Amino acid sequence: MRILVLGGDGYLGWPTAMYFSIRGHNVMIVDSLSKRLWEAECEALPLWPVPTIHQRVRHWHDVSGKSIGITIVDIAANDRQLYQMLGDFQPEAIIHYAEQPSAPFSMISRQKAVQTQQNNVVGTLNLLFAMKSRCPDAHLVKLGTMGEYGTPNIDIEEGFLEITHNGRKDTLPFPKQPGSFYHLSKVHDSHNIMFACKVWGLRATDLNQGVVYGMETEETRLAPDLLRTSFHYDAVFGTALNRFCVQAALGVPLTVYGKGGQTRGFLNIQDTIQCVDLTVRNPPGPEEYRVFNQFTEIFTVAELAERVKGAGKHLGLNVTINHIPNPRAEQEQHYYNPSHTKLTELGLKPRRLSDVLIEEMLEAVIRAKGHVDEQVLYPTVKWREL
Amino acid sequence: MRILVLGGDGYLGWPTAMYFSIRGHNVMIVDSLSKRLWEAECEALPLWPVPTIHQRVRHWHDVSGKSIGITIVDIAANDRQLYQMLGDFQPEAIIHYAEQPSAPFSMISRQKAVQTQQNNVVGTLNLLFAMKSRCPDAHLVKLGTMGEYGTPNIDIEEGFLEITHNGRKDTLPFPKQPGSFYHLSKVHDSHNIMFACKVWGLRATDLNQGVVYGMETEETRLAPDLLRTSFHYDAVFGTALNRFCVQAALGVPLTVYGKGGQTRGFLNIQDTIQCVDLTVRNPPGPEEYRVFNQFTEIFTVAELAERVKGAGKHLGLNVTINHIPNPRAEQEQHYYNPSHTKLTELGLKPRRLSDVLIEEMLEAVIRAKGHVDEQVLYPTVKWREL
Repeated sequence: MRILVLGGDGYLGWPTAMYFSIRGHNVMIVDSLSKRLWEAECEALPLWPVPTIHQRVRHWHDVSGKSIGITIVDIAANDRQLYQMLGDFQPEAIIHYAEQPSAPFSMISRQKAVQTQQNNVVGTLNLLFAMKSRCPDAHLVKLGTMGEYGTPNIDIEEGFLEITHNGRKDTLPFPKQPGSFYHLSKVHDSHNIMFACKVWGLRATDLNQGVVYGMETEETRLAPDLLRTSFHYDAVFGTALNRFCVQAALGVPLTVYGKGGQTRGFLNIQDTIQCVDLTVRNPPGPEEYRVFNQFTEIFTVAELAERVKGAGKHLGLNVTINHIPNPRAEQEQHYYNPSHTKLTELGLKPRRLSDVLIEEMLEAVIRAKGHVDEQVLYPTVKWREL
Repeated sequence: MRILVLGGDGYLGWPTAMYFSIRGHNVMIVDSLSKRLWEAECEALPLWPVPTIHQRVRHWHDVSGKSIGITIVDIAANDRQLYQMLGDFQPEAIIHYAEQPSAPFSMISRQKAVQTQQNNVVGTLNLLFAMKSRCPDAHLVKLGTMGEYGTPNIDIEEGFLEITHNGRKDTLPFPKQPGSFYHLSKVHDSHNIMFACKVWGLRATDLNQGVVYGMETEETRLAPDLLRTSFHYDAVFGTALNRFCVQAALGVPLTVYGKGGQTRGFLNIQDTIQCVDLTVRNPPGPEEYRVFNQFTEIFTVAELAERVKGAGKHLGLNVTINHIPNPRAEQEQHYYNPSHTKLTELGLKPRRLSDVLIEEMLEAVIRAKGHVDEQVLYPTVKWREL
C-alpha cells in the first residue's frame, strides 16, 4: 500500500513509518519539524539525541535496505504543497499524527493555546479538503485522544452513544468534556472529520488513544543508536510512566499530581503501532466515520507510580513517591469505565505492562542518566493560572 | 452598565448597541469591519446602503443625544489591542456577535472554511484569555446557533442532557451534529467557552439562536434612513424569510431548497434584542456556563414560503413557490422538538410572526426593489461539491 505518515518525525510517527516500510509498503513521511522547535522553546530535549529526519531515513536504508520518502511541509500553512503531494503520491492510507501533542504546552499562554488549535484544527481541515480534491478514496487514520471524553459518570462508548430521551431514541456522538486546549483541539477535529465524511463521502477512523509508554519497537531494536524514537520525560511532552522511570533512575521522588486517583487508559508504543496496522488493514466504507478507543489497560496515576516503585526496588533503587499540588484542573477521584472492544474484535493482542518492561526501561534510563535535565521534570504550567 | 458589543457594525450588533445606549448604558462597539469585505467578495450588498460605523454613531448621537464608543479591531488578529481595550473599558457585559455568520460562506472553498473557523474560534479564544486577564468578572453573552445541535431524533434540550446509561447517570453536554463549517465553528466555540468557565471561573451564556428575520427595531424606527440595520436577501448572508420577501416583491418564485420540510426555530430581530437584554440583566454566577435556546416559533421552510405567499396575495402579488435542488446536505423531513423555556422563565414575551409583519416587510422591499440584484438570490454554493 501507499501509506503517508503525517508527523513521521515524532515519537509515534517514526516507528510507525519503519513498521510499514519493512513490511513492503511504500511509505512517505510528512513533517513540518515544528515539534523540534517546540521542544527547544520548552527546554525539553529527548533523553537521547534524535538524528534529523533525513539521517533517520538514511540509517533506515542502511539497516533495512528499504527507502522511505520525506516531504517537509507544514500542512496547516502550506495547503498548495499538501494538495500537490496527495495528488502525486496517491496514498491509500493517511496516518495523521501531525499535531501539537501536549496538553501542558497548550496551557502555557494565549499564544500557545491559539497555536495548538490553529495548528491542529487548520492542519486537519486542510487535509480533509486536500483528500476530497486529490484522493477521496484514501482512508484517514486520525490520532485522537481518550481525553476527548473527559471523565463522565457513565460508561464511555466508542465515539457514539445510543440515547433514549422522552421516549425517543437516537445514536449520537458521545458528549465530550475535554480538559485542555490541546484536548479541545482534538474534539474540534473529530467534529470536522465526521462532517467531511458525511458530506463528501470520505472514510476515516478516529483513534481515541490512551497514554502511550515505552521506548522500543521491533524496528528500533534493529539498531537502537541509529533508529531509536524520541523519549520525552519532561513535564510538557513526557507521559506519566516515562517520567516516573526517569525520576526513579535519578533517585528523586516520583511526582504524582494531587491524589493520583486520576484514572486513564494506557498502552505500549508497540500496541499503538499494532492498532494502527489493524485499522489500516480494515478500512471503513465510503462516508463512514468510525471511532476506536485505543488502549489496553487502565491504571490510576498512583498505581503507575507504585508499579515503578516496585520494579525499582527489584533493581535495588530506593524509590519514593511525592504527591504534589495538581497543576491541572481534573477530577482526582472519579468513575472511569471506557469501552474498548472494537480493536480487540479486529484482532488486537495487548501487551500488558509487565514489571520486566518497567525494569528494562529503568535500566536504559540509568545508563543515560547523565543526560537528564532534572529541572524539566517538574510542572511549571498551571491550568488555573496564566 | 458598561457593555461591549463585539460585531456592533452588523445586522444584530448595531440595533443591539442602540437598544442599550438609549437606556442609559455605556456602550462600546467593537468591530473589524470584515463583514463588509466578505459582502463585497460575495457580491452581496445589503438591500439598503449602510452608512459607515462612524457615520452610524454620529447619526445616533444626532437623533438620540447618546454617545456610543467605537474600537476598530480584529479580535482574531490583534490580541494586544483587545487586552488593552478590555482593561481600559472594564466591561460588565460583553455581547459577542463578532463572527463570520454564514453557513454558505463557510462552504465556498477550503480558504473560506479555514477563514471561518480561524476567525470565529481564534477570536473567541483571544477574548476568553483577554477576559481572564483583564475583566474576569464580566459576563460573556455569546451568540451561538440552534444549528449546533443538528436534527437529532430526540428532543433537544438547552445545552445539556441528563443521560442514563448502563444504570448510571450524568448530565452531559448535548451531543452536537452541526451541518457546515460555520456551524462547526460555533460548536468549537461552545466547547472552548465551557472549558474556560470551568478552569478560570469565567461566567458565560451561550445563546443558541434560531433564524432571525425582520428589518426594524424601536431604535431603527427613530430615523429609518439614518439608523437602519443591514438587510441581506442574498443566498449567502440572507436568511430564509428575508429572501422570500424579496423574491415575492420582485415577482420571481420563492426558492425552497428541496422538499422544504427542514424545520427550524425562528425569531424576530426585536426578540433577539429582548433575549440579549434579559440575559444581560440576569447574569450567571462565576464558573457558570449556561446555554439558552433562543427562538420563539418553529416553522418548516415550506410553511414560511406559504406564509409569504399568503401575505403577498393580500397585497395583490402573485407569489409562486419553486422547489429547487437542495444545495445543502441536510435532512428534508425530520423530527424537531427543541426545548426553549429558559428565556421564557426570565420573562421573554415573544412576538409571533404575523401576516401584518410580513406585509410590512413586503411593502418596504417593494419600495426598494429597484436596488435588488436578482442574481444573488440563487444558491451557488453546494455542500457536496468544491
